[in-house]
Amino acid sequence: MEEKVHTVKPQQCRIIEPGSMDPCTIVIFGASGDLSARKLMPSLYKLYETGNLPESYSVVGCSRSAMTDEEFRNKMHQAVMESVKLDEKTWEAFAKNLFYKIVSYDSKESFNYLAHYLKELDKQKKTGDNRLFYLAVPPTLYPVLATMIGKAGLADEAADDTGWSRIVVEKPFGRDLETALALDNTLHESFQEHQIYRIDHYLAKETVQNILMLRFANSIFEPIWNRSFIDYVGIIAAEKLGVEHRAGYYEQAGVLRDMFQNHMKQLLALTAMEPPSLFEADRVRDEKVKVFRSLKPLAKGSLNNDLILGQYSAGSIDGKRVPAYRDEMGVDPRSFIPTFALMRVFIDNWRWRGVPFYLASGKRLAKKVTRIVVQFKDVPHSMFRSVIDENIQANRLILGIYPEEEITLTFQTKAPGSKVCLRPVTMDFKYYDKYQGEILDAYVRVLHDCILGDHMLFWRQDGVELAWSFLDPILEECEACADPENTLQLYESGSWGPTAAKRWMDLILERSER
Amino acid sequence: MEEKVHTVKPQQCRIIEPGSMDPCTIVIFGASGDLSARKLMPSLYKLYETGNLPESYSVVGCSRSAMTDEEFRNKMHQAVMESVKLDEKTWEAFAKNLFYKIVSYDSKESFNYLAHYLKELDKQKKTGDNRLFYLAVPPTLYPVLATMIGKAGLADEAADDTGWSRIVVEKPFGRDLETALALDNTLHESFQEHQIYRIDHYLAKETVQNILMLRFANSIFEPIWNRSFIDYVGIIAAEKLGVEHRAGYYEQAGVLRDMFQNHMKQLLALTAMEPPSLFEADRVRDEKVKVFRSLKPLAKGSLNNDLILGQYSAGSIDGKRVPAYRDEMGVDPRSFIPTFALMRVFIDNWRWRGVPFYLASGKRLAKKVTRIVVQFKDVPHSMFRSVIDENIQANRLILGIYPEEEITLTFQTKAPGSKVCLRPVTMDFKYYDKYQGEILDAYVRVLHDCILGDHMLFWRQDGVELAWSFLDPILEECEACADPENTLQLYESGSWGPTAAKRWMDLILERSER
Repeated sequence: MEEKVHTVKPQQCRIIEPGSMDPCTIVIFGASGDLSARKLMPSLYKLYETGNLPESYSVVGCSRSAMTDEEFRNKMHQAVMESVKLDEKTWEAFAKNLFYKIVSYDSKESFNYLAHYLKELDKQKKTGDNRLFYLAVPPTLYPVLATMIGKAGLADEAADDTGWSRIVVEKPFGRDLETALALDNTLHESFQEHQIYRIDHYLAKETVQNILMLRFANSIFEPIWNRSFIDYVGIIAAEKLGVEHRAGYYEQAGVLRDMFQNHMKQLLALTAMEPPSLFEADRVRDEKVKVFRSLKPLAKGSLNNDLILGQYSAGSIDGKRVPAYRDEMGVDPRSFIPTFALMRVFIDNWRWRGVPFYLASGKRLAKKVTRIVVQFKDVPHSMFRSVIDENIQANRLILGIYPEEEITLTFQTKAPGSKVCLRPVTMDFKYYDKYQGEILDAYVRVLHDCILGDHMLFWRQDGVELAWSFLDPILEECEACADPENTLQLYESGSWGPTAAKRWMDLILERSER
Repeated sequence: MEEKVHTVKPQQCRIIEPGSMDPCTIVIFGASGDLSARKLMPSLYKLYETGNLPESYSVVGCSRSAMTDEEFRNKMHQAVMESVKLDEKTWEAFAKNLFYKIVSYDSKESFNYLAHYLKELDKQKKTGDNRLFYLAVPPTLYPVLATMIGKAGLADEAADDTGWSRIVVEKPFGRDLETALALDNTLHESFQEHQIYRIDHYLAKETVQNILMLRFANSIFEPIWNRSFIDYVGIIAAEKLGVEHRAGYYEQAGVLRDMFQNHMKQLLALTAMEPPSLFEADRVRDEKVKVFRSLKPLAKGSLNNDLILGQYSAGSIDGKRVPAYRDEMGVDPRSFIPTFALMRVFIDNWRWRGVPFYLASGKRLAKKVTRIVVQFKDVPHSMFRSVIDENIQANRLILGIYPEEEITLTFQTKAPGSKVCLRPVTMDFKYYDKYQGEILDAYVRVLHDCILGDHMLFWRQDGVELAWSFLDPILEECEACADPENTLQLYESGSWGPTAAKRWMDLILERSER
């Protein structure tokens, strides 16, 4: 018998010293746009303020508008102030490395000029020829910009004296398998896969690492994390918002492209994946891809066995009347675009065979909530049957993502008192309870990881393709449907989706929500 | 795929209607004594107040002192008032059924008279000839009283017109296997096993049922409740008190007889037992007995491999100086009686083979605490080894009994922030949180179960015998030890026991306690 005394450290970390980060230049295309002002610049400022930028760095804003460095700095100063608490002195120090360059996106000459400018700046700022290109532009511009960057020699990592070059794009990555492949081909003409960072900012919440650490840094969950003990898994991402100002995009996408292609798939993969051998981007992405590969395709011609689509009609949210989707500005009054989907999928592998995964997402639902519900099976035998009439409520583990990142475990205990009573109780743990530090925004994390070169939170090409391969036939069948009026169920805004979905939604929702 | 919608009831109970309880007479021997005044009578009053006595009942106090019913009632009135909040009107109603009978414990005639009296009272109070005899007397009197009750025909359940007869005794049940068998033989001359209630009021805390329900009303614990996933189990019952006024008893018993024969064994059995097929006294006791039978005897001649004995020396408790055990009133100044023991036992069965159970109990320790610690194994493989230097702290489930009945689960999560950090966190659940009802004293439960005829919380003869069979050789070897001064380690009052015990105690204690 070997004996072991557990020595416990209260917290175990990887510390990244700013000195160990590569110096680099961050080039933002679309720098005069909304994303840049609302998200990227405040995040870069935050990184600087918290000591998470390299010692040598510069930020170069690019867009088609004419601006001086000074004008750009003032504009960004304004923008950052609107987003975060800004310390003037810190801003000044940060903004010294902030520059602006007008770029004509379709002009080779303009890009050559940019390349020259960046080379000079590299020398001056000692940023080692390392560059991060952030495409904060509409997806239609991704191929154009990627090509131009490549042609200007800025994607090249080959020569001895060049540093790294990385490109960052945000979803959507195409609108089906074909367009996704086309986009990838274009990106790959200039960049290799390891240079490409495809953002899913859902993943940049703490969620990914939370789920992986919960599953794989504890020995008690993994033994019961399979078809022998789990009855089903529910994944829900519900919104109260309607389509808002995004009707143009949404009328093309619908809930399947908007949510099921990416976020829902990622949450599914995190919940279902096998343990990676190492907590390292490609080992983790390998395991995710294995899940996508094991997804059982929905049965052709009888989609409605496993898929319920809905579209919101008028109703009320927080006591306020809201219009039907078809009455929203920019939406076709006869639109058959689904704003709600509940999909049942199975994973055909050893661990999950036969366990249904219910994926639900929709707009204008009763509550904004994102969570993963792991419903365990009933006890195999109730020894309490002589004293308790009912079935014993089975255990449930909830990984909450929104409104709180939390873990809740429901289990049975004896109710106090002389009677023999069971009572379901919950233990829960909120990630940010007692946390004194700063909660970092998703974009802060994304930018930080791009600079560090950590692909963990980003999609890999094969994952994107497999996700589309699964969704493509479903989209085709839905869109070719001869009878959309009967396939698409209307639901009242502020409800939990169409009546047809109730039985499955009840599986996912908490008792108090049903 | 069968689908199931979980319907959930917030609480599931067996309700015992007072009308469904047998009417009965409760006869207390030693009615003028301390236990009766401090525990039994307040508990009976509580049962009455909360509607948990049968509709027809009477309570007959017996002892060797002369008293009228009225005097007895007044004495008990006083005693109950000192223990619980008493409502005068409720007391009056309760006390109407309170009687007193002087009994000479060694006189057959006196018992015949008592039998006649009880028969008359039965008729008058319509208590159906059902009787509960509570022996609130020193253990030396158990055989005498049991025999006398038997000879007076009061133990007889055979005739058609007689009701049930039950006898209640408290530990100690003998001081070794031989004396335990002798006591049982005497009890069994008059009573059958099903008539005998051996109290372990440790069990009458809510603990027993709590542990059983936690283990067997939940599907997630049982799959990992075995040698594959559990590293070790610790059971600790620590006291700050010294020997107090019980030196006479304790000098004969020591910590092994006082705690390890009964309470510690019960907690061990509850933690280690296989699932009973039914939540029913004999099915549960069958499984407990199986654990006792599987206990690996400590190796003869090398006890100190598995057993550390200690005795408290002077020290301080809560900042107050306290004397050594040997300086306590009534203690032999050269006493070698242990006041602390830490024992490592193994259970030789399929489930537990090789898993050490550390049982620790002692007086004058740093803290009053009773808990069961289930320490899970380390994760089989740390995928986080590239980012975290240390071993990952393994999961721990604590079933707290004192100071609070609670469940605590320690597990690893990601610490918030951009660094990859693990941090151990706990989820806990306290049984009495948000509980509005009354918390019933152990004696209230015991009396209630005796009246109901529920043996769940009581020792069965074979259990007592098996517990002694395990302990007997240990006691013999300890007591015959040629070199007690080297076997018994002194420890400072207010510490966590002898230095030699530290390594194992550290396994059981929480980080903050070490």
